[in-house]
Amino acid sequence: MTANIDAAKAALSHMEIDDAGPQLKTKSRDFFWYSPVLKARLDHVLGDFVVAPRNEAEVIEVLRTCHAHDVPVTTRGAGTGNYGQAMPLAGGCVMHMKNMAAVKDVAPGRVVVEPGCLLKDVDAACIEHSGQELRMFSSTWATATIGGFVAGGSGGIGSITWGSLRDPGNIIRLRVVTMEAEPRVLEFRGEELARVSHAYGTNGIITEVEMPLAPAYDWVEMFVAFDDFMSAATFAVDVANLDGVLSKIASVYEAPIAHDYFQRVRPHVDEGTNLVGLMVAPHSMDGFLTFLGRTQGAELIYRSDDHDWQKHPGPVFEYGWNHTTLRALKVDPSITYLQVRFGFPEHLEKVAKIREMFSPEVLHHLEVIRENGKAMFAGLSLVKFTTEARLDEIVRLHEEAGCMIFNPHRYTLEEGGRQTVDDRQLAFKREADPKGLLNPGKMIAWDDPEFGFETMYAYPKLKAAE
Amino acid sequence: MTANIDAAKAALSHMEIDDAGPQLKTKSRDFFWYSPVLKARLDHVLGDFVVAPRNEAEVIEVLRTCHAHDVPVTTRGAGTGNYGQAMPLAGGCVMHMKNMAAVKDVAPGRVVVEPGCLLKDVDAACIEHSGQELRMFSSTWATATIGGFVAGGSGGIGSITWGSLRDPGNIIRLRVVTMEAEPRVLEFRGEELARVSHAYGTNGIITEVEMPLAPAYDWVEMFVAFDDFMSAATFAVDVANLDGVLSKIASVYEAPIAHDYFQRVRPHVDEGTNLVGLMVAPHSMDGFLTFLGRTQGAELIYRSDDHDWQKHPGPVFEYGWNHTTLRALKVDPSITYLQVRFGFPEHLEKVAKIREMFSPEVLHHLEVIRENGKAMFAGLSLVKFTTEARLDEIVRLHEEAGCMIFNPHRYTLEEGGRQTVDDRQLAFKREADPKGLLNPGKMIAWDDPEFGFETMYAYPKLKAAE
Ligand SMILES: Cc1cc2nc3c(=O)[nH]c(=O)nc-3n(C[C@H](O)[C@H](O)[C@H](O)COP(=O)(O)OP(=O)(O)OC[C@H]3O[C@@H](n4cnc5c(N)ncnc54)[C@H](O)[C@@H]3O)c2cc1C
Ligand SMILES: Cc1cc2nc3c(=O)[nH]c(=O)nc-3n(C[C@H](O)[C@H](O)[C@H](O)COP(=O)(O)OP(=O)(O)OC[C@H]3O[C@@H](n4cnc5c(N)ncnc54)[C@H](O)[C@@H]3O)c2cc1C
Repeated sequence: MTANIDAAKAALSHMEIDDAGPQLKTKSRDFFWYSPVLKARLDHVLGDFVVAPRNEAEVIEVLRTCHAHDVPVTTRGAGTGNYGQAMPLAGGCVMHMKNMAAVKDVAPGRVVVEPGCLLKDVDAACIEHSGQELRMFSSTWATATIGGFVAGGSGGIGSITWGSLRDPGNIIRLRVVTMEAEPRVLEFRGEELARVSHAYGTNGIITEVEMPLAPAYDWVEMFVAFDDFMSAATFAVDVANLDGVLSKIASVYEAPIAHDYFQRVRPHVDEGTNLVGLMVAPHSMDGFLTFLGRTQGAELIYRSDDHDWQKHPGPVFEYGWNHTTLRALKVDPSITYLQVRFGFPEHLEKVAKIREMFSPEVLHHLEVIRENGKAMFAGLSLVKFTTEARLDEIVRLHEEAGCMIFNPHRYTLEEGGRQTVDDRQLAFKREADPKGLLNPGKMIAWDDPEFGFETMYAYPKLKAAE
Repeated sequence: MTANIDAAKAALSHMEIDDAGPQLKTKSRDFFWYSPVLKARLDHVLGDFVVAPRNEAEVIEVLRTCHAHDVPVTTRGAGTGNYGQAMPLAGGCVMHMKNMAAVKDVAPGRVVVEPGCLLKDVDAACIEHSGQELRMFSSTWATATIGGFVAGGSGGIGSITWGSLRDPGNIIRLRVVTMEAEPRVLEFRGEELARVSHAYGTNGIITEVEMPLAPAYDWVEMFVAFDDFMSAATFAVDVANLDGVLSKIASVYEAPIAHDYFQRVRPHVDEGTNLVGLMVAPHSMDGFLTFLGRTQGAELIYRSDDHDWQKHPGPVFEYGWNHTTLRALKVDPSITYLQVRFGFPEHLEKVAKIREMFSPEVLHHLEVIRENGKAMFAGLSLVKFTTEARLDEIVRLHEEAGCMIFNPHRYTLEEGGRQTVDDRQLAFKREADPKGLLNPGKMIAWDDPEFGFETMYAYPKLKAAE
């Protein structure tokens, strides 16, 4: 099976195609370079051409054509994923969804939208229509697409209330095109969503998304400072447990993150400041301030609706989730990160224990999320990178301490997840992508069912660096 | 201090006053007769006259006048409270709020309303204005007032998501008039709300309420049947823990409650059916059904948007909260009830234990509520009443088993609550009602600070039966 790139390009030449150097390179990359491990392995990866279909019929045409010519297809939203999810490991076609960005329908509690629509544009349309917004969004709200979020993301701002994307109810419906001789169009709801959501586009291309909405408010954004780290962590989870106070994010930054990496916050904190970033609904502010008033050692240093900071810090959520790592990287390129789950009910104990073991080599950055009804922490810890061996050791020590790791230094679904095959995704790939052309190299179970996970997976067909 | 009723009536004669027999009797009673204990003690209670002010100025006038003439004032919303809260134990003036029912302002996330507005009318105005509704409401939604809910209620439909009225954020602001020689008008927010909310109008009269709102949806109402009781209870709390599925109520009815007491449900169940009543947002139905499909032994027997029941059962929430007791009472007048807290994390174990101890003398009726972020149960158990001594014993045995009881067979704040004085309420009563004329007999700490709670409190000035 050799890809006939030229034949596919010729057949698709009536569409918007890009195969020039700089564009091609940019569109073949995502934020994989957050990880020194992935950077070392994927830096050279390059597709053969980029095509940008304008509608579902053109998606079908791309898939039919590439199927006929054995050309791999890697779909691209905005390429903000940070595990190389959107990178064409075996080259071939990069299918860019930017021309499919229409908001099709907004109703109470739901929106129907094309996958290439930016998260911020979904929100703008829903606010305009009826004062609604997405329940949750990635901190890349301003640049990422809804399709990329569903296919490659996990949750984010809003997960403090609504849990994760994979929880029943957080995606309503997906419309999906298969990659067969004659592509089929399928609609998935309920239990079947798990086949294609968070599958990195390895087993179908999403052409329409129906998502639940929540009311949009003029969220009050805040920073609350603490001298004591565990007080900050406890406060953040306590805020999530205030049933009458509607919040959208609660992030915890161990000192000296705020001081060292948050440039516009720096004048207002010192090295010892542990910071909590928050978004609270305006009509919940009295309730929030009531609780704040009961909290020892908490100092409200910024609120977006009433402050005298000379330089506006920008949205508080752009300090949280993976933006924390980005800000740290900009100041100190040796910083990388980990994704840790500090599960209920020992979330606070585990956070304390890990801190004792690793701080300051690993600094806590915690996001409060809800899982099975309980507030707990997703950690996106900042790690001072030395060697891959030490990074692996840190991962192992976390796991031994009872903290689950979602390793962001891996480009496969399994290694970035729970290290087990998702049978539903694999079964659907057999149906929907019999030739294995969709985003190759991302699903170990497809390539190598016997893989043992002792070492990092290395996709055998990864195009060699030139 | 003797009340000069005639002088007060004369001074207020330009207002809407009622002192004729039947009206006076009706307006002096609430749903106290739910409790055989209260029925035996309060059945004769009667005010001297009813006055219905039309605005805050008239409230002030009533309070000033009654203060001058030493006349007790007991405020009345709709009189649906069921602990005799709204009953004028020492006679005097019943101040009826029905003429103060205006919805003054609706904004995103909030409503400002006069206290006499019915809960259903608040919702109607908010839906009409911007598709919003109250976060939580009493099951007496169709008949009760918002002022009575805030002053006498605790929570209800919506508490599965938002917790209880007393949680920070669930009341935004109260405007309150004191009963002094010259009444003052005060505004309470945040921490200060606890002074007057759920104080039965013993220390100030609420003339304006600001409440938080949530989006209004066409909630899908459902009944799900189970053969096994603990499966039903587990399911209800699991639904509350589905972070992506927005629900408004989850009630559990031990068999044979549905069969014996729910007349329109009876044809669709049998004696052994344990029932769960639910309201789920329409855009969460796929997520809900996904979970239902994973649940062993659950049968969806009714959904409001798609059913073939010949007789419409009416709103599912009118089977829940205190309406369960009402339905049971109508069929079997010997039924009364208890209010139990089955706290997290042993809520399920405690429910099982209590059932072993008492069923069928005590049948479980559970409502899932959220407290400190965790889903758990408020029990409004149905009790087959025999004697007061046995009822007290059942209460005691619950407490010994680690279940807190909010005794609904008592008319005082303390005995119906945690049996301790609320110092903030007492302190504010000293300020706001120096003569002790507001709803006398309901705050033990005011009457008898040394009271020991060994026996039921008997208000010494309770008017004797004629
Ligand atoms: C600074 C920063 C912050 C971040 N914060 C978060 C966060 O808070 N939460 C979070 O979940 N993630 C976060 N991420 C990761 C990423 O930004 C998000 O998941 C984002 O939603 C991805 O959207 P995208 O349009 O950039 O997708 P891409 O990166 O383009 O694609 C993501 C994956 O989805 C696939 N895909 C894209 N479109 C389709 C389609 N239509 N059909 C099938 N497959 C498709 C791609 O092939 C790829 O495998 C962050 C990343 C960065 C760099
Ligand atoms: C069938 C049934 C079901 C019920 N379900 C629930 C439930 O789900 N949740 C719940 O919390 N309760 C419930 N209750 C109790 C009661 O119905 C509610 O608390 C209701 O909201 C009370 O409103 P109301 O207008 O009837 O108040 P009332 O009974 O008239 O008054 C309640 C208390 O508030 C005081 N009050 C009233 N207005 C004011 C004011 N403006 N200023 C100061 N004090 C005032 C009164 O003096 C009294 O002490 C139920 C009762 C019944 C009979």
